Amino acid sequence: MLTVALPKGALLKDSIRLLQSVGLDFSAFLDSSNRQLQIQDPTGTAKALLVRAHDVPVYVEYGQAQLGIVGYDVLREKQPQVAHLIDLGFGLCRLSVAVKQSSPYRSALELPPHGRVASKFVNCAKDYFDSLDLPVEIVPLYGSVELGPITGMSEAIVDLVSTGRTLQENGLIEIETLFTSTARLIAHPLSYRLNTGNLHQLVEQARAAILTKV
Amino acid sequence: MLTVALPKGALLKDSIRLLQSVGLDFSAFLDSSNRQLQIQDPTGTAKALLVRAHDVPVYVEYGQAQLGIVGYDVLREKQPQVAHLIDLGFGLCRLSVAVKQSSPYRSALELPPHGRVASKFVNCAKDYFDSLDLPVEIVPLYGSVELGPITGMSEAIVDLVSTGRTLQENGLIEIETLFTSTARLIAHPLSYRLNTGNLHQLVEQARAAILTKV
Repeated sequence: MLTVALPKGALLKDSIRLLQSVGLDFSAFLDSSNRQLQIQDPTGTAKALLVRAHDVPVYVEYGQAQLGIVGYDVLREKQPQVAHLIDLGFGLCRLSVAVKQSSPYRSALELPPHGRVASKFVNCAKDYFDSLDLPVEIVPLYGSVELGPITGMSEAIVDLVSTGRTLQENGLIEIETLFTSTARLIAHPLSYRLNTGNLHQLVEQARAAILTKV
Repeated sequence: MLTVALPKGALLKDSIRLLQSVGLDFSAFLDSSNRQLQIQDPTGTAKALLVRAHDVPVYVEYGQAQLGIVGYDVLREKQPQVAHLIDLGFGLCRLSVAVKQSSPYRSALELPPHGRVASKFVNCAKDYFDSLDLPVEIVPLYGSVELGPITGMSEAIVDLVSTGRTLQENGLIEIETLFTSTARLIAHPLSYRLNTGNLHQLVEQARAAILTKV
């Protein structure tokens, strides 16, 4: 039986809607009283795992799930050994550099050498500043990255921005965009190559469903 | 002004109660409508930051907070350069090895060499199995670690256990305890040495408050 790893949080609703359009119903995960992390489609053709976004590629990489849906941001940060199949279009956001509105910096290259940049996306931030040849110290944080510049711990942050509301509420402004991100359908490479559980057909149906919407 | 970093989640209520007993009131953080991550004590003598548990030692290490409250589990995992001042007693839990009830393993040493162990506590798990001289592959997960053995991705997990209810609900049993954990008061080493903002007095008051309770 096919297993699909689905991400908790912002992408869940659209992910479930996409799977419904190819005949798989995992809407039980949207029920607020649901405590199960593993459910079966009512037709008995597939199973879904409900996991943290960062864990989706792990389950797919180890082959415990043949398919997964996760943001491009997570794929860029973790570089897992998975096949990238389809850009699903939803979950649009961007990874940006932001600073305090009151700071004198208006581009990444103006940031002071050996300054500090707080981020949950340590690898993306490091690669970006390396590509600019600007030495900075990355401060790894788990949450509320905007506190970095507010408390004075860091000159800047590298964080995901969708509406920009959090930045605005905290007196921060974006000065650069590293990349934009959307949800992606990923697969376990070997399962995809061997067409385990007729994976190809499902992927083509998903591709068609996405195209119809556009 | 002194700044204290407080952890979101399970330790917050007891942390705020402790600070109240030494004259600092940050109970505004317990108001469910609160969205602020930084508040000042009504007497104007100290400030508190509300951050993720794993970020508490970061703010203290960089000196953005002179004091912090965080679980010993986080300190063991991250090994930050902070001064460990007081065992606060609350937030008791343990980091344990657990397996499926139906598995044949009843001690860590019975686990198969080169098996897989899923954990959020990658460093603690690695150190533990190294100390047993048992080679295992640690699978890093962000949440719902119990899915590791359930999906068959890993033979075992290393995870925090407090009541044991999550393990039980998922058909898992503890077979080893790595260490027990409680909340700790930590300080920025230099601030503590220099007695910034009369830190020592506050720490002694906290120590007395803890002793009175015992």
